[in-house]
Amino acid sequence: MKSTYQPTKNTWSKVLQRPSQSITDLESIVQPIFETIAQEGDRAVTKYGKQFDKLNLNNFQVSKSEFENASTQVSDALKEAIQFASNNIRIFHEKQNFISERIETSEGVICWQERFGIENVGLYIPGGSAPLFSTVLMLGIPAILAGCKNIFLCSPPNKDGTIHPAILYTAKLIGLKNVYKIGGIQAIAAMSIGTETIAKADKIFGPGNQFVTAAKQYAQKLGTAIDMPAGPSELLIVADQSAKPSYIASDLLSQAEHGPDSQVILISKSRELIKLVEAELNSQLIQLPRADIAGLAIENSNLIYLEEEEDIIEMVNEYAPEHLILMVQDESNYLKKIYNAGSVFIGQYSPESAGDYASGTNHTLPTSGFAKSYSGLNVDAFCKYISYQKISAEGLKNLGPVIEIMAEAEGLMGHKNAVSIRLKDLKNNP
Amino acid sequence: MKSTYQPTKNTWSKVLQRPSQSITDLESIVQPIFETIAQEGDRAVTKYGKQFDKLNLNNFQVSKSEFENASTQVSDALKEAIQFASNNIRIFHEKQNFISERIETSEGVICWQERFGIENVGLYIPGGSAPLFSTVLMLGIPAILAGCKNIFLCSPPNKDGTIHPAILYTAKLIGLKNVYKIGGIQAIAAMSIGTETIAKADKIFGPGNQFVTAAKQYAQKLGTAIDMPAGPSELLIVADQSAKPSYIASDLLSQAEHGPDSQVILISKSRELIKLVEAELNSQLIQLPRADIAGLAIENSNLIYLEEEEDIIEMVNEYAPEHLILMVQDESNYLKKIYNAGSVFIGQYSPESAGDYASGTNHTLPTSGFAKSYSGLNVDAFCKYISYQKISAEGLKNLGPVIEIMAEAEGLMGHKNAVSIRLKDLKNNP
Repeated sequence: MKSTYQPTKNTWSKVLQRPSQSITDLESIVQPIFETIAQEGDRAVTKYGKQFDKLNLNNFQVSKSEFENASTQVSDALKEAIQFASNNIRIFHEKQNFISERIETSEGVICWQERFGIENVGLYIPGGSAPLFSTVLMLGIPAILAGCKNIFLCSPPNKDGTIHPAILYTAKLIGLKNVYKIGGIQAIAAMSIGTETIAKADKIFGPGNQFVTAAKQYAQKLGTAIDMPAGPSELLIVADQSAKPSYIASDLLSQAEHGPDSQVILISKSRELIKLVEAELNSQLIQLPRADIAGLAIENSNLIYLEEEEDIIEMVNEYAPEHLILMVQDESNYLKKIYNAGSVFIGQYSPESAGDYASGTNHTLPTSGFAKSYSGLNVDAFCKYISYQKISAEGLKNLGPVIEIMAEAEGLMGHKNAVSIRLKDLKNNP
Repeated sequence: MKSTYQPTKNTWSKVLQRPSQSITDLESIVQPIFETIAQEGDRAVTKYGKQFDKLNLNNFQVSKSEFENASTQVSDALKEAIQFASNNIRIFHEKQNFISERIETSEGVICWQERFGIENVGLYIPGGSAPLFSTVLMLGIPAILAGCKNIFLCSPPNKDGTIHPAILYTAKLIGLKNVYKIGGIQAIAAMSIGTETIAKADKIFGPGNQFVTAAKQYAQKLGTAIDMPAGPSELLIVADQSAKPSYIASDLLSQAEHGPDSQVILISKSRELIKLVEAELNSQLIQLPRADIAGLAIENSNLIYLEEEEDIIEMVNEYAPEHLILMVQDESNYLKKIYNAGSVFIGQYSPESAGDYASGTNHTLPTSGFAKSYSGLNVDAFCKYISYQKISAEGLKNLGPVIEIMAEAEGLMGHKNAVSIRLKDLKNNP
């Protein structure tokens, strides 16, 4: 664990440096899989399942009885927790509606926008040791609220050919019917291209390992939209002496346990707090089952002392953290001035894990500084807008001469003529 | 000009096929330019300006006197037209505001979102024969309304080292101060990486040729967001016997003159209308200054007869046109059911060129079927959202057990512990 005291601004970019990403170019692995699936469809999906997951599945679709069976394998306590979280996430996201308003930009010229759910959306849920059923909620609920017509989900099966029951229970709970037992590159390729079984997605959402990430990038190159660029998870905490060191340490460790490339940062204007957090980190770390992973992430991380609140704010905006916790006596100045972050947690009782699971906000957030230009997932990520204009004869009489002059100045006489031909008619038949 | 009568659905994808794009991989040209600019900054920008534009500019920034000089070179009529259009675009876009609402998802758990303008945005305006000052309005006005702090614009200079006066006049009119005389790959690279003169953009917007498009794709790969994937412009018209064939032909030609790879389509349930439009096209085409370009685009295009309104709607949704004109007696059924389009023009007096210049809607729209997943530019394209949660002690008592159960089921004990440590305190000190 590094500590850095009052770094000068010209060193900030170094102090805030994120763990370097392995930049292996995986396109050479991804491309042939896409090409084979484009040619052979389902047959190729089965082939890659055999090759990568050692499973021979000819039918990828999760059946009704598999859904029902899954439900019996989830404890009532977990079911209730998932329902509670699902409810909060729905309440928060369903307020993200859009009210269309007709605007008369000039007399006789009415313009407006409407929002539509993207028709075909593909969701990806990673497999492995941790079954990310919480991500099913975070992707599925906004997709349903957006009104997407065709929502389907791919997740890699376990060695026995099943998907974790909590994932299936959650999918069924929120109303997702099409779940496929496909993982990795072949899942992204199948959703991007479409096969006999799987519809072609207009947009693909969800986390994954470096192969999934590379496949999503390749899908984007081929024209399938994706949610956002992926990177390791990160947390920045700003805390003052009002904060409990043990809470800070527990939050830093909750982020650190995600992976050795996770990054956690504390910024404080209290030297004393930094010392206390360091001690707490050491004592809490050893108690975690994933202490080895968290320990590696903690090594990459930094406890930073800065004297001035304005400098702290500037540093947060420069780093643009995925998660930001503000454990300070008065957060108002920070809230007013911080404009680069994914999701913000305010106060002693707002740990990051609240947002990861159940507060209601989305946990799919921009990492690696992408909070400078991207939002976390929300209902709008599953929608697109169409603009409309309806111009009356009177409206075109007002607008027409303007269009004629501008089109001519841009050298586009066809554009001008489309107006002139109408204006001439209106002049002759007023 | 092709005509197709009542094609069966299994042939639609062929009937609607877009002109094939040259898929030359330009990354090998783009990459070294990015790398050199990353190393040498402004010096490399000058070097590439010399190499590609035959100009030796050490100072790229447009000066105050250049802005003033430009203003004297634009006719009063054009100035007034630009002001009128600018006003309509502002009126339409400034309604795209966001009202934040605090939502209590469960007792003591308050969640909300706020919208922020992206801090650094780079705009690109192509040069060449047609000075696209209208695009300065379409990119600049929403950027300013979004509250982006640092907006800068690159455009390639003419052979005499100046930028077209209409572009400079428009930039100054709407309040853009930082305009740089840089074009092509080096402009995108400079904005993506940042140099001594040019700030690093968080997101880059604007049209361009294949080199600019390839550079934007490369910038995206390096982590700079871009507005949307680019492709040739296109127009689909749905018309019935209430429509004037001469208007339809003028609209099809206004789109066709953009480039030989533009695509224009008419769908109608009137065989007679199709014949009349064909005749009008031939007679109007020869009168256009850009008849050679428009003629090539018209060759790629199709006049399609379909008997049933529902089939027409389905075909529009399958094609997902950038521009859609509805010249029909009653548009209500179409408006209700068409969900894939960029911008829609309704009625006899709403030519596409109205939206290109002055109705108020944005003319930067998704092409190549991307209207299935992307919106045209709006104020939100220049913004990102942050989510917030503030949880009281009472709130965490409600939410905490849910988080504990879910985190444990996902195998993330650090996440659980961040809650448990707080709940324990609250139990001991209620």
